[in-house]
Amino acid sequence: MEPRISLIALGVKDLERSYRFYHDGLGFPTHFAGEDMLLFRSSDSRLALYPQSCLSEDAAPRLVGKHSEFPGATLSYNTCDKALVDLLLHRAELAGGEIVKPAEATFWGGYSGYFSDPDGYLWEVAWADFWQVNEDGTVEIA
Amino acid sequence: MEPRISLIALGVKDLERSYRFYHDGLGFPTHFAGEDMLLFRSSDSRLALYPQSCLSEDAAPRLVGKHSEFPGATLSYNTCDKALVDLLLHRAELAGGEIVKPAEATFWGGYSGYFSDPDGYLWEVAWADFWQVNEDGTVEIA
Repeated sequence: MEPRISLIALGVKDLERSYRFYHDGLGFPTHFAGEDMLLFRSSDSRLALYPQSCLSEDAAPRLVGKHSEFPGATLSYNTCDKALVDLLLHRAELAGGEIVKPAEATFWGGYSGYFSDPDGYLWEVAWADFWQVNEDGTVEIA
Repeated sequence: MEPRISLIALGVKDLERSYRFYHDGLGFPTHFAGEDMLLFRSSDSRLALYPQSCLSEDAAPRLVGKHSEFPGATLSYNTCDKALVDLLLHRAELAGGEIVKPAEATFWGGYSGYFSDPDGYLWEVAWADFWQVNEDGTVEIA
């Protein structure tokens, strides 16, 4: 098995609301927009949005209907500029997200905060002065 | 905000058990292994494993303790060979995962199944004859 993740799929309640948040609000270019799927290119990986009922029905029909507030998994957005952390959290809030943890110095030596998207999926926005910055603006954290 | 996901972080209960599953079982090369973090390189993205308590405490302290069976998000592994789908599901089972949905023809025209890792995170293994295969074996789904 090659070490790759082809797709990160999030089950969402309202595709149009998610489109407004991720495309209009955060500026993610749409790679494909269908009736039951939104696909955003993301570096080499992609972020796909499906109606929650379709995704859970497709993946694990016997678990449909279960839900909790903490999604278990988080996505991170690493920046090469500390000032961007607060700016991006603010942008997410303006787009309809919620800052669930304002940016602050972290136990691991960086600076980060979290916002939740309209479905409660958590994104960390983070920076650390010991990360190596690549030419394309992406960062190497280890 | 650039369209990228720097990190996909899964909260897990037992890092050593997860190491055995992902590294020993599935063959993911370890990029970094610390006391509180396992980091696997994954194409351009990475898969990070943290103790569940640390991740939820870090991201959303007020939600600690909530849990459900369906994690809400899934990860997908796309193959360029239909026969690999069943083989990889079987390999995941041998590694300690559970096949939660045996591979079958899907409503979207492909062939896929799902396994859960030891913490219940769902991975889809999928193939479709209309995907474009890149030179490195990765596939373009849209």
